Amino acid sequence: MEQYAKYSASVRQWKMAPGFSNQKSGAGKSSVHVNNPHLDSMKEDILYHFNLGTDTQDLPAMFGDVKFVCVGGSAWRMKAFIQYIAGELGLGDPKAEYPNLCAGTDRYSMYKVGPVLSVSHGMGIPSIAIMLHELIKLLYHAKCSDVTIVRIGTSGGIGLKPGTVVITKQSMDACFQPKFEQVILGKTVVRNTDLDEGLAEELLQCGAELDKFETVIGNTMCTLDFYEGQARLDGAFCSYTEADKQKYLAEAYAAGIRNIEMESSVFAAMCKLSSIKAAVVCVTLLDRLKGDQLTSSHDVLSNFQQRPQMLVGHFIKKQLNSSQ
Amino acid sequence: MEQYAKYSASVRQWKMAPGFSNQKSGAGKSSVHVNNPHLDSMKEDILYHFNLGTDTQDLPAMFGDVKFVCVGGSAWRMKAFIQYIAGELGLGDPKAEYPNLCAGTDRYSMYKVGPVLSVSHGMGIPSIAIMLHELIKLLYHAKCSDVTIVRIGTSGGIGLKPGTVVITKQSMDACFQPKFEQVILGKTVVRNTDLDEGLAEELLQCGAELDKFETVIGNTMCTLDFYEGQARLDGAFCSYTEADKQKYLAEAYAAGIRNIEMESSVFAAMCKLSSIKAAVVCVTLLDRLKGDQLTSSHDVLSNFQQRPQMLVGHFIKKQLNSSQ
Repeated sequence: MEQYAKYSASVRQWKMAPGFSNQKSGAGKSSVHVNNPHLDSMKEDILYHFNLGTDTQDLPAMFGDVKFVCVGGSAWRMKAFIQYIAGELGLGDPKAEYPNLCAGTDRYSMYKVGPVLSVSHGMGIPSIAIMLHELIKLLYHAKCSDVTIVRIGTSGGIGLKPGTVVITKQSMDACFQPKFEQVILGKTVVRNTDLDEGLAEELLQCGAELDKFETVIGNTMCTLDFYEGQARLDGAFCSYTEADKQKYLAEAYAAGIRNIEMESSVFAAMCKLSSIKAAVVCVTLLDRLKGDQLTSSHDVLSNFQQRPQMLVGHFIKKQLNSSQ
Repeated sequence: MEQYAKYSASVRQWKMAPGFSNQKSGAGKSSVHVNNPHLDSMKEDILYHFNLGTDTQDLPAMFGDVKFVCVGGSAWRMKAFIQYIAGELGLGDPKAEYPNLCAGTDRYSMYKVGPVLSVSHGMGIPSIAIMLHELIKLLYHAKCSDVTIVRIGTSGGIGLKPGTVVITKQSMDACFQPKFEQVILGKTVVRNTDLDEGLAEELLQCGAELDKFETVIGNTMCTLDFYEGQARLDGAFCSYTEADKQKYLAEAYAAGIRNIEMESSVFAAMCKLSSIKAAVVCVTLLDRLKGDQLTSSHDVLSNFQQRPQMLVGHFIKKQLNSSQ
């Protein structure tokens, strides 16, 4: 288990607590891996969808101290998260305006305070995949080490009280298989969607310590569509019955699936390929066994969406304090 | 070919020119189809990702006169488009601020001027699919008829001079097949990705009339990933060579593919299922045979991105003027 010394803004350095070891690196640090022999021969690397680049920014100076990356679909939510975490860690005013580091584009938003980076990824596998390719390259160019990434998102629950937070054990596809299919040169490559078990357990423990809402570990189904792909009855098209829907969701439940979202599989696969410790923490906005529409009030949904932020905020704080 | 009478803001009505007929409806109007028997029994329909609903808004009053919907990935670009089209159609000041009709959410942005609706859809098939489900339901609830939808986007070209505008003939998958695979209840359903041939030809004619940039009709490859999925060498992962990439792109070219993007297949499939006349008009930002990175200056890329807007603006103007 990594432990980090207390953050010092003046030196922009994080030191590892004594006793830390990582099998992937003899130097005791786990670097972010890219698996691309072409990258090092490129004169410049333009991270187009971030509007950042190796020639236009000093990425190690800007991002070298990043230890925690939190990602989520909504740009507004990721801005709210950086304000929240600034207050929680005592690194800034939670009501202050933090600059969007991707200000030159509207594809993604990015905020940073201390060792925490907060990045939006839009909705769906392709959108988060573009962001992750560029984020992984950014962390690599910035020479970051010992990075933990958590996706904090929203989801539909299965058989859970709305507002429950689900920490993903395995990300599964729409056939309940724990895999992600990546098409490369027209051929399908199957990738593993394992997430870090120790990190999931630790996040569950944080939920218990907070004791403000229910937190569970379960499998998460990741689909390519929100309506037909998740057996909703309220899309523009629907060719199945309520009974068909219930049967499908019951099968998902039997496979250990407790929530459904649209990004976890490629997130797990890409983080694993990069040797980045990763977790998925999503709140359930409704129980899909009981309905499809999001009928809760704005205030209720807004409260639910803060729960993964609180959980991960507690986790980061605990990590940073653990070696003091 | 539909022809529309001149827009009259006071009555918010569009009349069909004499002689119009549509085989789908005896009344001479082509309605937006939803294929979902559950919808009509719902007391209320919340279009969650638009932050609109049938109980909270008067959708026929707000949207009943919509005849043209333009969609694109970037919220900024879709805002710029509504300003541009307001000026082109003489319906408003191109420098004015137009309200975002989805102001309560950051998932999508939506703007309207006269009969033109401009909506952002984010990046990738899942993101545009969520938007289209809710857009099709919106047009249905608003009782819109004779609607034309055009996606105005950006893409990577194959063997074309950067800045060329490609009007999609067929949208193809990463194996060069003209189909879209939708997973429903864990089973794959194959959908047709045909677009309206007459509309494509008409848009090509508009390009010729404008005579400001090259416009071609070609097949468009729609992928689930920007890096490995499009044979790029500059992602965080790459397991193939430059020669492999060139071979794949040459095969795509041989299949009639002239550009690559990430939304056209599901866009074509969903518009076809809804009997909405649809086209895809994307500018190529680079020639993928010559590179992967977007190295052109901001000004050049910005100019390129205006081209689909100009083309579709010309088309809409022509349609609206044709029955005067």
